[in-house]
Amino acid sequence: MSRSISDRAARVEPFLAMDVMSAAIRREREGKPVVYMCVGEPGTPAPSPVREVAAKAVADGRFGYTEALGIRPLREAIAAHYHAAHGIAVSPERIVVTTGSSVGFDLAFLACFNPGDRVAIASPGYPPYRAILAALDLEAVEIEVGPATRWALTAEAIEAAHAARPLRGVLIASPANPTGTMILEAELAAICATCRRLGIWLISDEIYHRLVWIGAEKTALAFDDDVIVLNSFSKYYSMTGWRVGWMVVPERLARTIERLVQNMFISVPDLSQRAAVAAFDPVSTAELDLVKAGYGRNRELLMRRLPQMGFSEILPMDGAFYVYADVSRFTNDSMAFAAKMLDEAGVAATPGPDFDRSRGHRYMRFSFAGHPDKVAEAVERLEHWLK
Amino acid sequence: MSRSISDRAARVEPFLAMDVMSAAIRREREGKPVVYMCVGEPGTPAPSPVREVAAKAVADGRFGYTEALGIRPLREAIAAHYHAAHGIAVSPERIVVTTGSSVGFDLAFLACFNPGDRVAIASPGYPPYRAILAALDLEAVEIEVGPATRWALTAEAIEAAHAARPLRGVLIASPANPTGTMILEAELAAICATCRRLGIWLISDEIYHRLVWIGAEKTALAFDDDVIVLNSFSKYYSMTGWRVGWMVVPERLARTIERLVQNMFISVPDLSQRAAVAAFDPVSTAELDLVKAGYGRNRELLMRRLPQMGFSEILPMDGAFYVYADVSRFTNDSMAFAAKMLDEAGVAATPGPDFDRSRGHRYMRFSFAGHPDKVAEAVERLEHWLK
Repeated sequence: MSRSISDRAARVEPFLAMDVMSAAIRREREGKPVVYMCVGEPGTPAPSPVREVAAKAVADGRFGYTEALGIRPLREAIAAHYHAAHGIAVSPERIVVTTGSSVGFDLAFLACFNPGDRVAIASPGYPPYRAILAALDLEAVEIEVGPATRWALTAEAIEAAHAARPLRGVLIASPANPTGTMILEAELAAICATCRRLGIWLISDEIYHRLVWIGAEKTALAFDDDVIVLNSFSKYYSMTGWRVGWMVVPERLARTIERLVQNMFISVPDLSQRAAVAAFDPVSTAELDLVKAGYGRNRELLMRRLPQMGFSEILPMDGAFYVYADVSRFTNDSMAFAAKMLDEAGVAATPGPDFDRSRGHRYMRFSFAGHPDKVAEAVERLEHWLK
Repeated sequence: MSRSISDRAARVEPFLAMDVMSAAIRREREGKPVVYMCVGEPGTPAPSPVREVAAKAVADGRFGYTEALGIRPLREAIAAHYHAAHGIAVSPERIVVTTGSSVGFDLAFLACFNPGDRVAIASPGYPPYRAILAALDLEAVEIEVGPATRWALTAEAIEAAHAARPLRGVLIASPANPTGTMILEAELAAICATCRRLGIWLISDEIYHRLVWIGAEKTALAFDDDVIVLNSFSKYYSMTGWRVGWMVVPERLARTIERLVQNMFISVPDLSQRAAVAAFDPVSTAELDLVKAGYGRNRELLMRRLPQMGFSEILPMDGAFYVYADVSRFTNDSMAFAAKMLDEAGVAATPGPDFDRSRGHRYMRFSFAGHPDKVAEAVERLEHWLK
């Protein structure tokens, strides 16, 4: 025994997108311009009703601990949202407000899985899935997805993985990061039914809901009540730095999660909770839909210009605000390519190994959540650089 | 396999202080008055320089993800505080800004300990220590403390526990919750030296620093650089609901913790970080010292009146804002006593089993972090009720 770093922490890999951001911040500090396409983060502030509530709350006074599962008005507003957006009745008792969806993952994994349990995720996928599973001594079972399934997990692939060696849970994401792909409705229904039949937990990451370009998103709750849904105010609602998100959990899990929160987190930032209630205000929706229209323009621009520059394969981009692009025409080492792109072109984007350890060396992820002027500037910079 | 709750989550007990608070909130909602002495939470808002920075930031705009270890100005301000308050040079690279000290514990345990590792804590102690250790598959080795050591852990007791079966770490708290006791300077030095010699991690919870009534607090960093120190803006700085705290870690641990944060939390609320810089402003200090003077009056009042009412044993109360009082004259079941006290006297306080599973049935913890008028009201209510 000695004062060494734990094995579980040593297993956790860096989240390269955050490392690229740190490098980009250092570059900017040196006075060199950077267009940030590395992190999935809106360039806009929270909608004005949110900021108005916050300004008033700050002026008035005190922020305290709240009930561990979140303040009642926010839990009710989120429950009402499921009714308005999906026609689904969800009781506020099943809503858990979290300090960003990140904490939602931490909680879901702790509540459902014991050390050694196997949890299936898609590859490519959001890197922290793998890392949090590792930190909590869980085994990430990476199921490779590709063009054959529009880069989406399928019920069939889940069933095959479970048959090979039993799974305790599955984590799906639709629209997905980094691919932007959606799981089609029939497939989502099949995944829900399959997981229920196999008796394995289904965790559905729906953080990119309301940022959908083709078709309409469905929540897993439409097909099964006994799943865990994760969402956040960070993406569509443009509130990353407020750190507030939510889970919908089966009622029997709510008390377990309450105990975990009481002990591990106490409560979610008070101001962020109070302000987030206003994120469902119609004025907020109108403002956010304008922001979304800007992402739509970015998406069109990138879909047109990236292939012209030699980014050969562009993934479906059904939703979210990412392009996951094949860069094999330029490099076989997207890590080095990303560093060079930041250094020479002043464009910060995230190399593929963050998302896919076996094939990521020939992919890059560009976030187009920035202002259209910024994304247009990035396109110019890239075109000039790649010429 | 099935969709059951994990064993590790099932092991986590409720944090009774939070449960009492929930019950108190329900009571208030029914229109019945409550004096809150259940949670260790200042009744005052953050100091005005903090609120001014926050108001400006909210009006101006956008809150984003920050660097995982915290914004540079805050890490520098915290480092400077160690120089000003303790004459100790700590580089900003060793400061980790956390979403409250709760997340600091989560991170410290994950970074240092593997499943099954044994970590010593004092009993009575802060209940989430035990619960977080359980959630992360660690074994809490509870060392009973009592009047013989002024209710403080000693180097001797740690060495004995380690000899019985090796420890991987020790968590100390000074001033401690719920007892209010401080580890005296010579003993703290001995604990630091012992843990270093034994090669076990030392985690020092210093969240009640600057709330000391007798003598002056020392940081463990004064005796050993290679320890983990936890602190927060929640207590002295009166910023609970902002959820912002910090760790000081050995340099070799900073990168490990950065990776954990990137993946499990992304970053700390942006606004809270920016505002917390102003918590070290001299105007903030003057305001907070006034608040502290109020706690001092509360402490005097309770030290005088509680024994008169029949609370026979009052612990040292060197620091923090708690009275941990013997209620065995009234009951042998402090859980039932707490429920009755809330119901009949309208005073919410926390029963001892939260802090000490073997002896807690005859103790209650009263937080005196509220306004002196409120604490005086509680004393009146208790006197009337116990008559």
